[in-house]
Amino acid sequence: MCDEVTEQKVDITTSVMSKNDRFAEDNRELLSGKGIYTLNLISSPGAGKTTVLESMARFFGPRMAVIEGDIQTRRDAERIEKAGCQAWQIETGGACHLDAHAVNHALGHMNLDPDALELLAIENVGNLICPSGYDLGEDMRIGLLSVPEGDDKILKYPSLFSSINVLVINKMDLIPHLDFDVDRAIEECRSLNPDVLVFTVSAKTGEGMEEFCDFVESSFSTTA
Amino acid sequence: MCDEVTEQKVDITTSVMSKNDRFAEDNRELLSGKGIYTLNLISSPGAGKTTVLESMARFFGPRMAVIEGDIQTRRDAERIEKAGCQAWQIETGGACHLDAHAVNHALGHMNLDPDALELLAIENVGNLICPSGYDLGEDMRIGLLSVPEGDDKILKYPSLFSSINVLVINKMDLIPHLDFDVDRAIEECRSLNPDVLVFTVSAKTGEGMEEFCDFVESSFSTTA
Repeated sequence: MCDEVTEQKVDITTSVMSKNDRFAEDNRELLSGKGIYTLNLISSPGAGKTTVLESMARFFGPRMAVIEGDIQTRRDAERIEKAGCQAWQIETGGACHLDAHAVNHALGHMNLDPDALELLAIENVGNLICPSGYDLGEDMRIGLLSVPEGDDKILKYPSLFSSINVLVINKMDLIPHLDFDVDRAIEECRSLNPDVLVFTVSAKTGEGMEEFCDFVESSFSTTA
Repeated sequence: MCDEVTEQKVDITTSVMSKNDRFAEDNRELLSGKGIYTLNLISSPGAGKTTVLESMARFFGPRMAVIEGDIQTRRDAERIEKAGCQAWQIETGGACHLDAHAVNHALGHMNLDPDALELLAIENVGNLICPSGYDLGEDMRIGLLSVPEGDDKILKYPSLFSSINVLVINKMDLIPHLDFDVDRAIEECRSLNPDVLVFTVSAKTGEGMEEFCDFVESSFSTTA
């Protein structure tokens, strides 16, 4: 019985993924056509994605727009708007990840004026597992790990941490109160993903955020 | 096209869930037949499930056994064994939650001697979303929220927090360093789930853990 169900699941997964990949390609064409560089931010709940994006919103201002993914509530989009950026909230209503179709739909509602906009950041649903399988059409995938989660999480969630371009270790202000070995986390991430770039930041205090934003800016300036 | 895929997904989900429910009932019969009380612990990655279980292992000793669910690595089972309890690791190999079939398989490998064992704790995969839909055959479902994740997470993940019997707020030792309103978290949880019981603990310092363990013990003593 179980094998039958598994087999059916694989078929559906394949169908869903090829559909997702088509929408991801549509998103990529639309955004790159307008010269908009796109980030996909993935982390656990509470690792600080929205606080990182608020800090980025203050750096980039109206040059950046944000798509917020949450199971429920519009709280995060309201925080980003207050920080000075256009934001669109996707409430997934139970789904554990964003997919490229949901992003495509959001893009249809946003003002993607290429004269004003250079950067789109997509905050995925808080989840270290399911979002890693879904290309949203991004140029850069960023994994955020926060110090209180522990330095053992990289090898526990290899599908995400092997698929990212950039690892951001957040909440560095809490390092004095916790046992978190930054070198161990970086080493374990590089064991899965030798080319990963790493930034250590505290979005709350601002530590490391300017360097990170400079890096993001240089990425889209180089691409443009 | 999308509606078609959604429709197929619903059919498969129904089939998977009825299969899961059958295994959950088998687990419940097997465990209650032996007088073993079962907990299902669900939280984000890094909220401190394993540290809570280490503390419980020191309290209950060999009266407790633990099933550890992780995508990958046997690290958590090794920690529990060191703390003095039997532990069985399920490596889900990518799956974002435990299901009752995986637990049933684990039970077949464990020593479930009813003269020695009174309590089984199942540590689910670190994920606030997908595990909430899967009954494992537990008597009590515990949601763990850690202070660094933020007090806004309850309403963002309502499917979990409306389904739990007990909310444990962990990492209370970090309260002085963070903006976390305990009253707000409890109030928002009770708005979804009026009967939820709440404990505030620090598994790291031990604060509140004896009271929590006494409560767990009284739950299975009352049931037996």
